[in-house]
Amino acid sequence: ISIIYSMLYPDIADLLPAKNGEEPTMQFLLEVVEILTNYVKKTFDRSTKVLDFHHPHQLLEGMEGFNLELSEQPESLEQILVDCRDTLKYGVRTGHPRFFNQLSTGLDIVGLAGEWLTSTANTNMFTYEIAPVFVLMEQLTLKKMREIVGWPDGEGDGIFSPGGAISNMYSVMIARYKFFPEVKTKGMTAAPRLILFTSEHSHYSIKKASAALGLGTENLILLKTDERGRVIPADLEAKVIEAKQKGSVPLFVNATAGTTVYGAFDPINEIADICEKYNIWLHVDGAWGGGLLMSRKHRHKLSGVERANSVTWNPHKMMGVPLQCSAILVRERGLLQGCNSMCAGYLFQPDKQYDVTYDTGDKAIQCGRHVDIFKFWLMWKAKGTVGFEQHIDKCLDLSAYLYNKIKNREGYEMVFDGEPQHTNVCFWYFPPSLRSIPNGEESRERLHKVAPKIKAMMMESGTTMVGYQPQGEKVNFFRMVISNPAATMSDIDFLIEEIERLGQDL
Amino acid sequence: ISIIYSMLYPDIADLLPAKNGEEPTMQFLLEVVEILTNYVKKTFDRSTKVLDFHHPHQLLEGMEGFNLELSEQPESLEQILVDCRDTLKYGVRTGHPRFFNQLSTGLDIVGLAGEWLTSTANTNMFTYEIAPVFVLMEQLTLKKMREIVGWPDGEGDGIFSPGGAISNMYSVMIARYKFFPEVKTKGMTAAPRLILFTSEHSHYSIKKASAALGLGTENLILLKTDERGRVIPADLEAKVIEAKQKGSVPLFVNATAGTTVYGAFDPINEIADICEKYNIWLHVDGAWGGGLLMSRKHRHKLSGVERANSVTWNPHKMMGVPLQCSAILVRERGLLQGCNSMCAGYLFQPDKQYDVTYDTGDKAIQCGRHVDIFKFWLMWKAKGTVGFEQHIDKCLDLSAYLYNKIKNREGYEMVFDGEPQHTNVCFWYFPPSLRSIPNGEESRERLHKVAPKIKAMMMESGTTMVGYQPQGEKVNFFRMVISNPAATMSDIDFLIEEIERLGQDL
Repeated sequence: ISIIYSMLYPDIADLLPAKNGEEPTMQFLLEVVEILTNYVKKTFDRSTKVLDFHHPHQLLEGMEGFNLELSEQPESLEQILVDCRDTLKYGVRTGHPRFFNQLSTGLDIVGLAGEWLTSTANTNMFTYEIAPVFVLMEQLTLKKMREIVGWPDGEGDGIFSPGGAISNMYSVMIARYKFFPEVKTKGMTAAPRLILFTSEHSHYSIKKASAALGLGTENLILLKTDERGRVIPADLEAKVIEAKQKGSVPLFVNATAGTTVYGAFDPINEIADICEKYNIWLHVDGAWGGGLLMSRKHRHKLSGVERANSVTWNPHKMMGVPLQCSAILVRERGLLQGCNSMCAGYLFQPDKQYDVTYDTGDKAIQCGRHVDIFKFWLMWKAKGTVGFEQHIDKCLDLSAYLYNKIKNREGYEMVFDGEPQHTNVCFWYFPPSLRSIPNGEESRERLHKVAPKIKAMMMESGTTMVGYQPQGEKVNFFRMVISNPAATMSDIDFLIEEIERLGQDL
Repeated sequence: ISIIYSMLYPDIADLLPAKNGEEPTMQFLLEVVEILTNYVKKTFDRSTKVLDFHHPHQLLEGMEGFNLELSEQPESLEQILVDCRDTLKYGVRTGHPRFFNQLSTGLDIVGLAGEWLTSTANTNMFTYEIAPVFVLMEQLTLKKMREIVGWPDGEGDGIFSPGGAISNMYSVMIARYKFFPEVKTKGMTAAPRLILFTSEHSHYSIKKASAALGLGTENLILLKTDERGRVIPADLEAKVIEAKQKGSVPLFVNATAGTTVYGAFDPINEIADICEKYNIWLHVDGAWGGGLLMSRKHRHKLSGVERANSVTWNPHKMMGVPLQCSAILVRERGLLQGCNSMCAGYLFQPDKQYDVTYDTGDKAIQCGRHVDIFKFWLMWKAKGTVGFEQHIDKCLDLSAYLYNKIKNREGYEMVFDGEPQHTNVCFWYFPPSLRSIPNGEESRERLHKVAPKIKAMMMESGTTMVGYQPQGEKVNFFRMVISNPAATMSDIDFLIEEIERLGQDL
């Protein structure tokens, strides 16, 4: 029977552009869509596991009928459909209401539709010529984001980049270009020793940028934070003065709006005062916290952001946009272009029939650039500004619920005191056997192993996922974050029950 | 009636994760899929226009019912469907059999299905934890690509990056790290003056990298090429010696396998001899030409590629994989990790339950990284290695057909003599009125305007699209490239007819 069926089933050679390829193409695509829509349905169903964990060697050895190896000869389209099903089966449901592992969670249906359309359009952002609609959407959306940041009339510049790390890298490049434009042609020898400043709690991408761009990680000075993980402005000023005394040039300060682990917001206004006083570029890394600008209730946490020279803001995190969607916004027009343009004649011809200032490619460090804007634009249309606000307020309410639930609960200890500024709730769980042990090296060592063990058991049982890490002197703790619109209070309750269930005998 | 209908039609608040959201979600997604599949069908239909051109101001002013502006309040889902239709309507059909404008053309059905699945899985490549299957697929596919490059047992390293420009940037970073690892911590002051070499015909991303990484564009030396656009090795050696005499350190040579405009392949073996002699990093930029490695007939054009230290290869160009899909391959293991790792504790915990060497994030300059591998892996499964070979051979046959058709045709002049090495066919078209004018400044000036005018008319009429540009002293000429599997000889014939139809009265 299977032989007959596979004789009837279309082959890859039957698909478009083959002659009479329409019908087999539609049949194949609709079967793929059925696999995908079933996956979507199950993702939102709490009785489905978040993941079906296997070790690398298990998947590499091949799971019944799922073979990752590539071969000389084509597979049948039926096998391709099986491969699609298996790929999803052994993956992780990042849209599941109980997936809390990363800053990017959730599966927005309109955003998903937007990505499907983007893939179907399969074009490139570098010129208006081949992406007219997307280029304009990007321009309008960036302007809207700059208005929300608070720059007059949304003036300025910006671009969508492949993630927050690249957006942050842009900010350092642009700052360097603003103060030492000759570095573009002559290299770093044309500049004095340049110093960057960022919080010890900030994202590692600032450090990656300092290495990549030729500044050197030793010239990135880490700033002290208070117990909540916020930069201490006096420490910044002291270190700026120290750098100047050593003959270096303070170039760039990164203030984080929503740190990765604590969700802390650096005091932007106080940092901006120092940047103005010493003529230093102020970047705000709002990759994680930028979304709070959409909320009238929470945007005060980014007070002063309008004083920044550049801002990173990732809609793919707190705003629930599918990956990837990250913007770098720049207050001064012309810097992005000046910093990156190389005027490639084959792509950016000046003698086109349309207004070529709409060609964006020469502003980018990329050449081809994926269309990241459409899903975001479509979600904005569908939800309205108010819809993003509701989503953000709801996530922050949920994290307040979690915080209030565990702050005095037996067996829990908060990593820092007070209500979290963002949705990050950081806590230790002490299994019963640890509760009676006095504080000390033994208890620290044992506690350090608790979160990894519980996390491993969670993954094996597939019930939920939450992140953990150490931070400075602090041993491993859980970092709960909520950006998933599907999560409810009952899912928070479930997480706590699950931690206690899995951890009780440790 | 429309009021009643819109009362019945699901609202965004009815979609998942809403209670009873399954049915409205399926209804909405299937309507989106219908829009997309109709678009796919029409894209392959030659009676459909390639594009429906509008100027930026026209689209910005709003086309009947299509308004790009974002607003406070949500739109109805019905309007969202209209927005999807309009977005496609005013876009460019890059998969159309007569779209020849860029190096990336075509719409592979299996690749498209792969992208739809990728969007649905909506995960991130940084850890095995949340992308187990994709991480393994990437690893296996990179190994396969390295085997095809010719490195023993496919040993080495690599990563998929957001495009060839970033892949090329990686190559410069890694070369610098290999020879001057202290630049990572101390910045460019820890290194002598470093010199990069690349062909005057090479892609501008090498120049962008030299600016971004702090080397400076003046320290990028352009190499002379022969009349076919291939680097002259003797010029490289002379310039290496000159740089050393000036006390600089030659660091990096880029050999292009398939230049953007001429499709030229630099002589890798002769360049490798020089790199070995002077201990210089050899990078091969095969973003465009790397695909030819899949063809037994054409891979000799990259002879010597196995001697490279790193290779850029974009499956999203010649291999027809949907955008974005670019790999940087590195011969020596450990360099990518050494160059980029920052050991972020919150992401790359050493105490996970699985083998954490599978976590790829710390090798990247990105943090979050889009899943670019699945569509490529799925296409490879579906076509087999032989399928890619057939595709590439066919495209090169088509370009030979075009070359033979026009090389002696009245009104045409080839930009360089001889059969093209890649699918790039570069030519001038002389309208009848220009044919009698003697060579000289006037004829040059008039000829310079021909390609832009014909291109503008093509876009206005929407019948086909092909690129043009000047190069050095040469006035604007057409650059025809073929990577679209849907293109046939009749489409080549059509292009020529169209150029003659539109150009006859110029």
